[in-house]
Amino acid sequence: MTTNVRGYAAKSATDDLAPYRFTRRAPRADDVEIEILYCGVCHSDLHTARNDWGGTTYPAVPGHEIIGRVVGVGAEVTRFKTGDQVGVGCMVDSCQHCAPCDQGLEQYCEEFPTMTYDGKDRQDQTPTFGGYSEKIVVSDKFVLQIPDGLDPKGAAPLLCAGITTWSPLHHWQVGEGSRVAVVGLGGLGHMALKLAKGMGAEVTLFTRSPGKEEDARRLGADHIVISTDDAQMEAVKSQFDLIIDTVPVEHDLNSYLPTLALDGTLVLVGLLGNLVPTMNTVPLIMGRKSVAGSLIGGIAETQEMLDFCGEQGITSDVEVINIQDINEAYGRMQKSDVKYRFVIDMASLKN
Amino acid sequence: MTTNVRGYAAKSATDDLAPYRFTRRAPRADDVEIEILYCGVCHSDLHTARNDWGGTTYPAVPGHEIIGRVVGVGAEVTRFKTGDQVGVGCMVDSCQHCAPCDQGLEQYCEEFPTMTYDGKDRQDQTPTFGGYSEKIVVSDKFVLQIPDGLDPKGAAPLLCAGITTWSPLHHWQVGEGSRVAVVGLGGLGHMALKLAKGMGAEVTLFTRSPGKEEDARRLGADHIVISTDDAQMEAVKSQFDLIIDTVPVEHDLNSYLPTLALDGTLVLVGLLGNLVPTMNTVPLIMGRKSVAGSLIGGIAETQEMLDFCGEQGITSDVEVINIQDINEAYGRMQKSDVKYRFVIDMASLKN
Repeated sequence: MTTNVRGYAAKSATDDLAPYRFTRRAPRADDVEIEILYCGVCHSDLHTARNDWGGTTYPAVPGHEIIGRVVGVGAEVTRFKTGDQVGVGCMVDSCQHCAPCDQGLEQYCEEFPTMTYDGKDRQDQTPTFGGYSEKIVVSDKFVLQIPDGLDPKGAAPLLCAGITTWSPLHHWQVGEGSRVAVVGLGGLGHMALKLAKGMGAEVTLFTRSPGKEEDARRLGADHIVISTDDAQMEAVKSQFDLIIDTVPVEHDLNSYLPTLALDGTLVLVGLLGNLVPTMNTVPLIMGRKSVAGSLIGGIAETQEMLDFCGEQGITSDVEVINIQDINEAYGRMQKSDVKYRFVIDMASLKN
Repeated sequence: MTTNVRGYAAKSATDDLAPYRFTRRAPRADDVEIEILYCGVCHSDLHTARNDWGGTTYPAVPGHEIIGRVVGVGAEVTRFKTGDQVGVGCMVDSCQHCAPCDQGLEQYCEEFPTMTYDGKDRQDQTPTFGGYSEKIVVSDKFVLQIPDGLDPKGAAPLLCAGITTWSPLHHWQVGEGSRVAVVGLGGLGHMALKLAKGMGAEVTLFTRSPGKEEDARRLGADHIVISTDDAQMEAVKSQFDLIIDTVPVEHDLNSYLPTLALDGTLVLVGLLGNLVPTMNTVPLIMGRKSVAGSLIGGIAETQEMLDFCGEQGITSDVEVINIQDINEAYGRMQKSDVKYRFVIDMASLKN
């Protein structure tokens, strides 16, 4: 049976988000029906609401950092039961038969994964609506178990900000003794510091703002390097095995590349677009260095990350808001005025 | 005892190369004295002669694809004896105690390797002179054994063009079943085709010129893709594990990046400078792809490459010239009018 739910949607690229009532599908045999408790607020939510990337289907209900409680399961579901604390991230489906899907890398599905919002259901072609709502119905393959003891508010951002930084840290085999640097201290950057530190790395934050030092150390940075200070940059030349670059806007990579060690990699997780200014190849060639990209993470590695966070007690630093405050939160997020992630308390939908 | 030798040198950035007499050092205990039989002609020779990179010390004697015969060894040399056929590549020394040197990656020496020409000897600070000469005296650690049966003319370019393409093929673990593409069909590109094919890869050449097809197939290409043909480029989307990009001048990487498979890498071995036009990061992020650089290769891997070429009978396609023709050869090389490497017969110095 379908369920009528309350949510918040953008009706156009220029409208503020506003209350919106819509229908969730009747659960299929493999579906999990989830009451949403908290939903993190990601920059992608804003980009989609405002049609910054083009192609948004309206009304658009954003939200892909979802924590909830199972309120029903389909006949074939065995991994979840009513009452379980679960999560849903950026994807709710994929082709599940291509080579990347077979490797558990659904984010790189050759037929493109079904995104949690602004996507199209693979079976009935209905639009997908995200976590700014009371409930969601998702195939069990794309539902994550949230370890007991993890604060649900702080766990919500793990589903996007967490996995987006965990995946490259894990893929490039960060561990004890690794030297990792993080560029940018926002939602992604603060998770990168916590996760890299938790994995045993020696962690450095690159920042332009001396004022971030105390917070960065609390979040896990062993060192802070002011990226506009030539002497500080020279002092970390050839130091880093991996740089996680979380900055989502145009910025110059050329000052960071010489700080990579031989065979080191700078991974872009935030910047989708042209490298402006352009990159000089000399540091790459003179030290077999790489510039790479990475997109969120697969479902299996998301579960690994959540289990790791459960063991280590790692969550995001969050500011909890009511859904009625979402438009103001978007404005503050654009000014980086949040430490470090807004999370919506979905109980406020009933206000 | 020092030896007076004949050679060819550039006396300034604007002078043609001309006969030049100079002195080779008296062999040290670890030195090998080599009579040079053949020397390949690399684009770096021309760039150094013309001071294209700045900082050339004149007179400059180029040449770092050296094949010769041992005519004397120092007291401590045990690996070589008079009469051995040997090679010398781009480097004649390095610090030999940094981390890259300890890994056999002398080309990335933290104190910078001593280059075969336009360098400075680490012991007596005298300038290094390259292979456009009768003899050379080199520390045994930087002398390579040339397998019996390998044609010495065709083996000369292995010392730079060969190892420059071998090193990334080997580092990125190309083997049976790998899908490798090569951009550019010059001295480096034609070696990349031969070596990748020899390693068991399925090999594709990207070229703008349909006329190169027959030659490319003979050299080892299984497929030829015209890089200006959108349909052909679309047909190889997400195909390649590794792209070896040998083009030494500004060119657009954006058409090649979508042809990389998930986790694929495009390695620049020719382009030192800014990426113009700039690179768009979307294909990197949407498939965890990398753009990397690689510089020549270490001594141990150069020996591995030579042994591999000895087993497989791989040499460069060369056009043998007399040293008196070197200026004309530079002119033709700039027009890519060579298939695929000029090699100087050093016996011509006596003409």
